[in-house]
Amino acid sequence: MYQNCIISVLLRVLCSKDRNTGRIFIVIKRNGAQKMVKKRISSEEVAKATKEALERRGVTIEDIAAIVYDMQLPYNEGLTIEHCTNSVERVLRKREVQHSVLVGIELDELAEKNLLSQPLQSIIESDEGLFGVDETLALGSVMTYGSIALTTYGHLDKNKVGIIKKLDTKIGNGVHTFLDDLVGSIAACAASRIAHRMRDLEEEGETFADIPPTVLGPKPKQKKENE
Amino acid sequence: MYQNCIISVLLRVLCSKDRNTGRIFIVIKRNGAQKMVKKRISSEEVAKATKEALERRGVTIEDIAAIVYDMQLPYNEGLTIEHCTNSVERVLRKREVQHSVLVGIELDELAEKNLLSQPLQSIIESDEGLFGVDETLALGSVMTYGSIALTTYGHLDKNKVGIIKKLDTKIGNGVHTFLDDLVGSIAACAASRIAHRMRDLEEEGETFADIPPTVLGPKPKQKKENE
Amino acid sequence: MYQNCIISVLLRVLCSKDRNTGRIFIVIKRNGAQKMVKKRISSEEVAKATKEALERRGVTIEDIAAIVYDMQLPYNEGLTIEHCTNSVERVLRKREVQHSVLVGIELDELAEKNLLSQPLQSIIESDEGLFGVDETLALGSVMTYGSIALTTYGHLDKNKVGIIKKLDTKIGNGVHTFLDDLVGSIAACAASRIAHRMRDLEEEGETFADIPPTVLGPKPKQKKENE
Amino acid sequence: MYQNCIISVLLRVLCSKDRNTGRIFIVIKRNGAQKMVKKRISSEEVAKATKEALERRGVTIEDIAAIVYDMQLPYNEGLTIEHCTNSVERVLRKREVQHSVLVGIELDELAEKNLLSQPLQSIIESDEGLFGVDETLALGSVMTYGSIALTTYGHLDKNKVGIIKKLDTKIGNGVHTFLDDLVGSIAACAASRIAHRMRDLEEEGETFADIPPTVLGPKPKQKKENE
Ligand SMILES: [Mg+2]
Ligand SMILES: [Mg+2]
Ligand SMILES: [Mg+2]
Ligand SMILES: [Mg+2]
Repeated sequence: MYQNCIISVLLRVLCSKDRNTGRIFIVIKRNGAQKMVKKRISSEEVAKATKEALERRGVTIEDIAAIVYDMQLPYNEGLTIEHCTNSVERVLRKREVQHSVLVGIELDELAEKNLLSQPLQSIIESDEGLFGVDETLALGSVMTYGSIALTTYGHLDKNKVGIIKKLDTKIGNGVHTFLDDLVGSIAACAASRIAHRMRDLEEEGETFADIPPTVLGPKPKQKKENE
Repeated sequence: MYQNCIISVLLRVLCSKDRNTGRIFIVIKRNGAQKMVKKRISSEEVAKATKEALERRGVTIEDIAAIVYDMQLPYNEGLTIEHCTNSVERVLRKREVQHSVLVGIELDELAEKNLLSQPLQSIIESDEGLFGVDETLALGSVMTYGSIALTTYGHLDKNKVGIIKKLDTKIGNGVHTFLDDLVGSIAACAASRIAHRMRDLEEEGETFADIPPTVLGPKPKQKKENE
Repeated sequence: MYQNCIISVLLRVLCSKDRNTGRIFIVIKRNGAQKMVKKRISSEEVAKATKEALERRGVTIEDIAAIVYDMQLPYNEGLTIEHCTNSVERVLRKREVQHSVLVGIELDELAEKNLLSQPLQSIIESDEGLFGVDETLALGSVMTYGSIALTTYGHLDKNKVGIIKKLDTKIGNGVHTFLDDLVGSIAACAASRIAHRMRDLEEEGETFADIPPTVLGPKPKQKKENE
Repeated sequence: MYQNCIISVLLRVLCSKDRNTGRIFIVIKRNGAQKMVKKRISSEEVAKATKEALERRGVTIEDIAAIVYDMQLPYNEGLTIEHCTNSVERVLRKREVQHSVLVGIELDELAEKNLLSQPLQSIIESDEGLFGVDETLALGSVMTYGSIALTTYGHLDKNKVGIIKKLDTKIGNGVHTFLDDLVGSIAACAASRIAHRMRDLEEEGETFADIPPTVLGPKPKQKKENE
């Protein structure tokens, strides 16, 4: 499915990339002819890998939705856990979020296997308090949901709740230096979406009781209409 | 239409706000009875005020779309100025963007009228090079469109083009300390939306020539469906 | 002391600014001769105005230091309130922080006097929950102290303590939409400085009990040495 | 020198960390007695590793200083390449910068060796245009130098110059997805420091010709005095 290790090394010499769009053109010379081949990871593959990575690390959509629900229930009449699950699912469709999750979990797993070089291995393994790259990575996605998401993330980072607390205190059972921040950022984004939507509902004189949870979820594929 | 100045001072003593949702409850005591009244600026009012503010300061949607078009054309086959106009319109529907625009233009206009206190008046009036609040404000909206928007904004800030250049050099004709950054940030956001959409189109084997410009524009009001 | 209102309007037509350094050249034509005059607000003026603005709004260095002390005491052996006061003083010497404070307090005060245009007046006056520009402004300074400062700020924004709580609930006594966030951001920056310094002390086998509080304070003016 | 792989796995079960300060306590049970041992990577080790990583990837302090010099010379009278080298050295002493460099280069090198899991391997290897984590990581350090650093970074990201251009176009010779952004961010930070210092000099009626380059460099170790 993915390009083979050896082939990738050989072909890299011949490929050229467009930085703006990320398009990669692989020029394959065969029998004197040139053929342009586009090679790229599809959005679907990235989305799938993101979900699998979270599951593999013991974090379910429901775990994250539970944090969102606890935080938003007091302010949002009619909110159900289904609204929260859908909001989390939608956040996980965002490229910035997917990329952060993939990189953060990769680093946690490499640290667990002792495959990072020193001193990075020790810094990540010990969840060094002044490290900061875990927060920076999480902020990359949090920022895209505005300032409410950002302060909510800061709150979750200090007052670890639910699955975040579990990850943070599971001493000896693995490295979660990045994962706790990623989960906090996803929860913060999903909560921010709900706060913004509540505002829209209020303007219409409605509450969450009036809308089906799927409205907050991933939008169905519809390339010819408004995103 | 808006709450009267004197009344607002009197009523403020009696109002209480919910920080999370922004709901304001004004408790009016009359004949011994209490009545809860919700008072809030609607999203429509804020959207309208944002557009009017830009126009009042001499910036049209088309001016901003022209910057977007110039930046994105090389990378996006089939892109038209209409796609860009629609993308700008959509960016201007975002709350973070609207609030930044309103605050920035207000400060520019107050500085023009010499109504700010010192030393802020002199700092803004002279577009002091190390000021930075204009960039910070612009970043608030840029961040919500991810890292491509951010680097594009940085580029526009250094290499002023089109209407941004005009605003920056219109010496003596008013204060545009915030406006140039706001315009740059809106253009950067609209450009980022186009780069992301191009990617989606490529996955489907399509180009912008295949989709109507309105697809990139503000979504029609549809509170019961996916946003 | 400051440039007069009328003169500034007349002279603006003749002045030219260097965007990178912020240098303003005012060209005064007199008797046919040209004379280049540099006109700029000094760092001292801005620093003084920042302190005065906070005091005028009822916030003392000690109020902010108290928040820092409460947050950092559990983690920092030997920490005294004097260390915190000095750290706050130092944070207040930073340009980014000073500019944020001046702009935020200006907007609060203008809103109190009902001098902003609508709908911004109503939005700021009511501390509209989804406004976000107050957080964005505060983030401008928080960012300069790294990710610990940022999550600490998020925590303080959600769990208002000390003077922040007082400002947030002083209903009817004025507008503090920006001030509460500014105070939170200054406290977060000062706390971050202490956490980083603690780390340095530990490496030397020392605690805060070993260093005089002034070490954390503003550095004495010394232009020929390392900043 | 560094903790051994096997030992680290065994001991991890017994260690406990203080999230705020990053202190790690390793409790070693031996002959029934408990002994508290502090285990932590020193700042010196991290600083040294950062410099070595850049060198290993073919980037010298002088390469970065050259970018800074080209950008700042027009605005800063008397500026020499030595001022720039010193400013870069100082930026490289900052924890946030060091951590970003270590993580970014680690990911580039792992991608070169084809040691990342899919689809992350392909995304980083191909410097996928919409990836964004490289920019986010770079932003983590850029932010700590304020908004001038940020817009300068955005400019460098779009208009690759000097060593950045070389890294970006060195097709087939390795993965530099993170490195180009890291170099841009270090240059932007060093440039921002110079712009701020120029401002201070102007207030004293001086230029860079009046101060020795080392003033901009790393401050000598002096734990009992102001940092
Ligand atoms: Mg973490
Ligand atoms: Mg500006
Ligand atoms: Mg506020
Ligand atoms: Mg890159």
